[in-house]
Amino acid sequence: MLRDVAVVGVGQTSFGEHWERSFRDLFVTAGVRALEDAGVGGDEIDAMYGGNMSAGQFIRQEHVAALIADYAGLATEGVPATRVEAADASGGLAFRQAVLDVASGASDVVVASGVEKMTDLGNDETNDALAGSADREWEVFGGGNVAALYAMIAGAHMDRHGTTRRELSEVAVKNHEHATENEYAQYTNEITAELVESTPYVSEPLRAFDCSPASDGAAAVVVVPAERADDYSDKPVYVEATQQGSDSLTVHDRRDITTLEATKRAAERAYEDANVAPGDVDLAEVHDSYTVGEILAVEDLGFAEKGEGGSFIVDGHGSVDGRTPVNPSGGLKACGHPLGATGVRQVVDATRQLRGEAGTQVEDASVAVTQNVGGTGGTAVVNVLSDRRSS
Amino acid sequence: MLRDVAVVGVGQTSFGEHWERSFRDLFVTAGVRALEDAGVGGDEIDAMYGGNMSAGQFIRQEHVAALIADYAGLATEGVPATRVEAADASGGLAFRQAVLDVASGASDVVVASGVEKMTDLGNDETNDALAGSADREWEVFGGGNVAALYAMIAGAHMDRHGTTRRELSEVAVKNHEHATENEYAQYTNEITAELVESTPYVSEPLRAFDCSPASDGAAAVVVVPAERADDYSDKPVYVEATQQGSDSLTVHDRRDITTLEATKRAAERAYEDANVAPGDVDLAEVHDSYTVGEILAVEDLGFAEKGEGGSFIVDGHGSVDGRTPVNPSGGLKACGHPLGATGVRQVVDATRQLRGEAGTQVEDASVAVTQNVGGTGGTAVVNVLSDRRSS
Repeated sequence: MLRDVAVVGVGQTSFGEHWERSFRDLFVTAGVRALEDAGVGGDEIDAMYGGNMSAGQFIRQEHVAALIADYAGLATEGVPATRVEAADASGGLAFRQAVLDVASGASDVVVASGVEKMTDLGNDETNDALAGSADREWEVFGGGNVAALYAMIAGAHMDRHGTTRRELSEVAVKNHEHATENEYAQYTNEITAELVESTPYVSEPLRAFDCSPASDGAAAVVVVPAERADDYSDKPVYVEATQQGSDSLTVHDRRDITTLEATKRAAERAYEDANVAPGDVDLAEVHDSYTVGEILAVEDLGFAEKGEGGSFIVDGHGSVDGRTPVNPSGGLKACGHPLGATGVRQVVDATRQLRGEAGTQVEDASVAVTQNVGGTGGTAVVNVLSDRRSS
Repeated sequence: MLRDVAVVGVGQTSFGEHWERSFRDLFVTAGVRALEDAGVGGDEIDAMYGGNMSAGQFIRQEHVAALIADYAGLATEGVPATRVEAADASGGLAFRQAVLDVASGASDVVVASGVEKMTDLGNDETNDALAGSADREWEVFGGGNVAALYAMIAGAHMDRHGTTRRELSEVAVKNHEHATENEYAQYTNEITAELVESTPYVSEPLRAFDCSPASDGAAAVVVVPAERADDYSDKPVYVEATQQGSDSLTVHDRRDITTLEATKRAAERAYEDANVAPGDVDLAEVHDSYTVGEILAVEDLGFAEKGEGGSFIVDGHGSVDGRTPVNPSGGLKACGHPLGATGVRQVVDATRQLRGEAGTQVEDASVAVTQNVGGTGGTAVVNVLSDRRSS
């Protein structure tokens, strides 16, 4: 990129069931917190991006970036407001587009946000909307909703690589443990593997507690040119890389369903841009919409060999005091997963870690990776963030 | 911007009712035509953007950029595919993000596309989905669908500025006349003002023939760094400016509903970036989703004083041989208006004009403006394109 970019402000709502709050309220709360954190006034904002998967289906509202810009008082200032969407990687895209906007020289101060209001529909309608992240014609009409597709992936991973039911459970157990100190998490209670395995099947082998919940919430970050970062923050966080990969939308078109090629492609480019190796990464916020997703992420990001993601977790390498702490925030399982908000929330949590301000803090964290996946892996965004400016 | 950008390939489907073709088919047809026009192979593409308003509501499909990238064979190459959305300005946003991506240095060869499949639903459902471009809670629940909101704008324009019913009609008449030579237009028949005025009211004072139709269609363009444009095209078209403005999403929050401030804000910045004045513009492709929209555009882009947009059209200044030809393609009224595709289609048509390859060709066209509006004006994108590289 032609210009380096830094994160100078972060904010989010708590994630959960916000019956009393509207879509626009959630955004404004997160946005104001990010602006306050950066010490930026509304009149300094040059552009904003909003990640959102499916307000059209959840609240029958499109044009949502304009909506939230309006409600935040930015629209009448003429601030360009752009919604981006790639299912539950929408937040990752919003962050990446904000970075590209600053890198292009078109804008200096840009807000990247993500927001989703999922709880206004009943369960069946919510699940049907969620299925829009998969290929409606070729997967969903045949019965392949997102949970069923991830169950196929999990089953194949168990079959080919010996991953066990207990290893899946331990992902959820670890993430709940990490979330106990996260004031924004939907669940801050600890759970046991036995509890996970006593919950009903959603789609065998995946049980209810393998799945991230339906959530309402929003997150926002402020990005600026790296050379101006010190004007806004004592602890700027530098965007060493932001890459986006893709793969076939349908699971059945993939060569190997136990690998998310979209993650691998984005990660390879991101590590190259940032000039780091997986072993240099101090922590990762990854996309565990289903527990098996975290095992895939651990492998596809290079923290463990293919097939060893499960034992990596069970052996504690992904715990806060482990070799490469994974989801010290609690991940999607415990933080909650308001689809379009998650990719931005990951950047918020990575920034807190690199500043040394996280609830469950990783010691001496200097390099963080975030990985955000759309649906079953048609899209993935991988960012490398650092507390030091390398380039 | 830190790097200049050029358009080196354009393509589109015909616009209309494509009962026999799917959403993904439409995209691929337009995309392949744009790539062939640029002489670009799929393996050269670094990124793609897709403008789409509401596949979630029209075909219950989100994650649509990944879907079309997959179907085009780009996903398995890992090409980042990003959907952007701002109602019927989604295509304008897709083009602008593609330009920013190249300008940032992140990508070299980028496809900007727009696609919408509107005819799979019945009329009531289509209109309800369309209303998602307005504020569902504060406008639509009160009865203000998009046609009704534009009718309020038209009524106010007639009341304050003396715009006549006949002037509205003449916008439609001119655009149908322009479209007679456009092989991609939904309507290529000429119409009369009397015919327009014999069609039923949709929302008084707007009649059926004041409205752009529901359409299926797709459009695509290929952008590259300006310094490499000659490698791809004998007649590259340079992006002198791409700006996006916003305003309150709700019509009732605007100071003056007879002006689209989003257009004015984007146009002011775009003219400054391109170092041109409205009088330098040789033709404009503008957003006449309703006839009054073209009158607003003529005024807000500075081709006529406020209140004189109607007489500008009636006096022939907006005709192909007039002072500033407006919608020589036929505009949204005659070309058709597949929501997310329109902003890209405008760039396709402006490029054809600047190359001297349009159906209804403007003589010696050198500078073109495109203006794409989301809903009633919460978002507007204004581009300035030129056959000469000025910066």
